Amino acid sequence: MAVKIAVVAPSCTLKREAAEAVLAIADDRGDCELAIHPQCFLEDGHFAGPDSARLEALREVMADPAVDAVWFARGGYGSNRIAEAALTDLPSAARDKVYLGYSDAGFLHAGLQKAGLSAVWGPMPQDAVRQGGEAAVSRALDWFVKRDSSALEPSLQMPAMAFNLTVLGSLLGTVLEPDLAGVDLLIEDVSEHHYRIDRTMFHLTASPNVRKVARLRLGRVGDIPSNDPDFGRDESAIVEEWCVRSGIPYGGRADIGHDVDNRVVPFGAADR
Amino acid sequence: MAVKIAVVAPSCTLKREAAEAVLAIADDRGDCELAIHPQCFLEDGHFAGPDSARLEALREVMADPAVDAVWFARGGYGSNRIAEAALTDLPSAARDKVYLGYSDAGFLHAGLQKAGLSAVWGPMPQDAVRQGGEAAVSRALDWFVKRDSSALEPSLQMPAMAFNLTVLGSLLGTVLEPDLAGVDLLIEDVSEHHYRIDRTMFHLTASPNVRKVARLRLGRVGDIPSNDPDFGRDESAIVEEWCVRSGIPYGGRADIGHDVDNRVVPFGAADR
Repeated sequence: MAVKIAVVAPSCTLKREAAEAVLAIADDRGDCELAIHPQCFLEDGHFAGPDSARLEALREVMADPAVDAVWFARGGYGSNRIAEAALTDLPSAARDKVYLGYSDAGFLHAGLQKAGLSAVWGPMPQDAVRQGGEAAVSRALDWFVKRDSSALEPSLQMPAMAFNLTVLGSLLGTVLEPDLAGVDLLIEDVSEHHYRIDRTMFHLTASPNVRKVARLRLGRVGDIPSNDPDFGRDESAIVEEWCVRSGIPYGGRADIGHDVDNRVVPFGAADR
Repeated sequence: MAVKIAVVAPSCTLKREAAEAVLAIADDRGDCELAIHPQCFLEDGHFAGPDSARLEALREVMADPAVDAVWFARGGYGSNRIAEAALTDLPSAARDKVYLGYSDAGFLHAGLQKAGLSAVWGPMPQDAVRQGGEAAVSRALDWFVKRDSSALEPSLQMPAMAFNLTVLGSLLGTVLEPDLAGVDLLIEDVSEHHYRIDRTMFHLTASPNVRKVARLRLGRVGDIPSNDPDFGRDESAIVEEWCVRSGIPYGGRADIGHDVDNRVVPFGAADR
């Protein structure tokens, strides 16, 4: 029986061409059924519709027992505005499915993990319009359908979690913050200056919760704006330095990022 | 007797022309003596010298009983890297002076306030090279020399504090975070997209400490990069919405910002 995957957009609007591309990929496979919620195409300023519409669509698919997986359409910004409400008074059907995405979806992932639901880091439908994006989207579908271990980040030590660095920094101290004790914590970022990465690492590594991770690993940091003058060290040196300063074991590089090579990281156990 | 003001640069390098301009202004006044520490002109990647040099210069002027005031040369980024060390084992002379600056200096201000020292938000030497910057610099000097109340932000209710929004968000949960209970909290920002302001307000207003402020007021938000699509609401609506969502009294606009009209905000009592 085909795996039923519902696509909603808690952050920004899904591009029509991305939706068409990902539907064609799913159709070719024949092992999954993609239901792209019309909310994905709403537009309200920065967002895929007002908070109320994004929340309603998300709650609807969470509560649907026929839905096996919820796939976040894309990142951008905005899921934090509805995450707390989305996780209130959870219907039982919400606990029987997995939730996959990355970037801004991290606000939801954090809250889902905290609530005991199955969050998964991985490529999203919007990635279909990247050059070579079919491979990224297929990796997510392989994991949805077959729990294909070749889709996974190759060096995970369970339990693991993955976050965009800036998103993780922004959810510390909020009701969404999950317990990070003993976690293989993977971070990545995009479009942030080196000085911002340094500042966010200062903030992150000051957290007593973050200091309890088993290790911290750095994925790719893409599209770094130029710093004038040059910052003087790269993202790897920055992250390693703050790990040393805070006593967090630095685990080296991780195979995640805002790109088509982005891998899957199931929060918690690998066989979830 | 002329007020002795020591200038150090805990963040980025002071421009030579700014130093010359501010020295000329002080010289013309004749009521203050400006000692610009040579560390201000060091360059080490992004910073005004390595952490060790910036820390040493700051500790030196803090410990000097002949210094009446410490003036932070400019912002940028980097004072967070030395703030904790700067505030360890404080010499008694450090407690007899005021510390003035804004923007990235907020990391130090937070720690100074927490340690019971006198932090003050206000224009910095680097502002001398802004168009109309002499007025800004003179406002700071008027406050140093005469505690001139016309230099103050006009609607302060004591105790008050002022921070760059992004800096304040980055110091929450760190050892620098001061007690904000009952404070007239002024925030401002520069060069941040509306979506980033929204995200930082989400983070800020989730803090139980921030929720104890007497009121939150919004200064100017300058140089906002364009959002595609348009975010849909302005910075004032963003800040007011998060105040409503979190139960923080919104106090309207404040007369501070990254510009020559930036006013002075003494942390704690007005006559400090």
